[in-house]
Amino acid sequence: MLSKAKVKYLNSLKSKKFRQKYNNFVAEGDKIAIEILKNAQNPNAAFSIEIEAIYGLSDWIKNHQDLLQPFQAIIAEVDNATLKKISSLQTPNQVLIVLKQFDFDLPTAQIQTNLTLLLDEIQDPGNLGTIMRIADWFGIPNVICSTNCADAYNPKTIQATMGAFLRVRTFRLNLTEFCRNFSALPVYGAVLGGENLFQTKLNKNALIVIGNEGKGISPDMIQQLTHRIEIPANGQAESLNAAIATGIICAAFRNL
Amino acid sequence: MLSKAKVKYLNSLKSKKFRQKYNNFVAEGDKIAIEILKNAQNPNAAFSIEIEAIYGLSDWIKNHQDLLQPFQAIIAEVDNATLKKISSLQTPNQVLIVLKQFDFDLPTAQIQTNLTLLLDEIQDPGNLGTIMRIADWFGIPNVICSTNCADAYNPKTIQATMGAFLRVRTFRLNLTEFCRNFSALPVYGAVLGGENLFQTKLNKNALIVIGNEGKGISPDMIQQLTHRIEIPANGQAESLNAAIATGIICAAFRNL
Repeated sequence: MLSKAKVKYLNSLKSKKFRQKYNNFVAEGDKIAIEILKNAQNPNAAFSIEIEAIYGLSDWIKNHQDLLQPFQAIIAEVDNATLKKISSLQTPNQVLIVLKQFDFDLPTAQIQTNLTLLLDEIQDPGNLGTIMRIADWFGIPNVICSTNCADAYNPKTIQATMGAFLRVRTFRLNLTEFCRNFSALPVYGAVLGGENLFQTKLNKNALIVIGNEGKGISPDMIQQLTHRIEIPANGQAESLNAAIATGIICAAFRNL
Repeated sequence: MLSKAKVKYLNSLKSKKFRQKYNNFVAEGDKIAIEILKNAQNPNAAFSIEIEAIYGLSDWIKNHQDLLQPFQAIIAEVDNATLKKISSLQTPNQVLIVLKQFDFDLPTAQIQTNLTLLLDEIQDPGNLGTIMRIADWFGIPNVICSTNCADAYNPKTIQATMGAFLRVRTFRLNLTEFCRNFSALPVYGAVLGGENLFQTKLNKNALIVIGNEGKGISPDMIQQLTHRIEIPANGQAESLNAAIATGIICAAFRNL
């Protein structure tokens, strides 16, 4: 049984304010929990993670004794009713893990020799997580979020990443400043009237700007673009979802 | 003011059962409402739509008199509190329109000379709508949903289409039977170990199968595939979101 104060604390992590205050975040569900526990014990993991606490149903804990071995001190058993109280999911799924937020140094050399996504005010946490999942798929190691992006530690973001948050580094930075610091790299972004993505010379080391769901790329960032591209349309739709556009653009860059 | 019975009726349309009973569905918000009203008066629209009723805030109605001219008989003014009661949106947005469900004949000749998406148990209404939006973008005129797909008339689907439901025809059919009826067309589907999408010969007239979010393409439909493809990965992610995969595959087909 958790104390009322503990339940209140865990509940508070649904809001960004308290995640920032406590410098942590929550990941939920059987599948992602197993991935987290394996990752924490994997010497070849992309980066190290720090688990603060594990809240699991009695059966779940029993069924995962091996994986849980190193974490005995931070496991708490909860019942269904308590899990429901602390969960962000409509249907809580057996286990909830609290992790420390990451504090990465900017991997300058890696950015100079890779693709990097620059998210210019992606608003929807689900889209942000889906974009991290796309980065993971295409082996894009770093995602830079503008300071007005959705929170990368939002529970909806974490769920949508499907584990990508264990492999893709996210940063929250001023994007125009970032571009100035990497001025040797070409900067691609999709804008109306841009050059056909599939006919553009794509560079394997580059910055790719993804614009806001409604407004597209901001005027400040438009100025940073060295290559204005467009996903060719055959229909009458006005726009593509931001995550869909990201998927298509990343696929084109990886098909070099 | 709407009667209690009318509010109850409109509320019932949030459930598939009642949408089927009344053979209609709901679209909401300023932007899509304007698109619907323009579409209803456009002789070149992809297909005709039938508006059953329009529920708008007083200001909204006042500001769109021109567009609303032909629909005077079916407009009802509602206040904010009533709109909130009948809306599926967290933040109701000025207007809600009830439309008749579509009853299309299968455009056999068009299917034989186009790309067609076959959705094999897409579960999430938002994904379904996003996929329709992708079809719209790439000018794919028909989307065939398996009988166990999410409902194409779910309010979340309609919102996610961003108007694509006005241009893309959806059908709800048995997919294996559908494939047998179009046996002259190649059938593509993404499976683990398939041929690199970007190195596969793609046909401009084809059926493209999109699998379920968790389970992928069903065993029955795997048997229908004539071309097993794969989106090449560079990272360690296990899978891509179904709508993201659809976007990448459709872009590859359109880049012929």
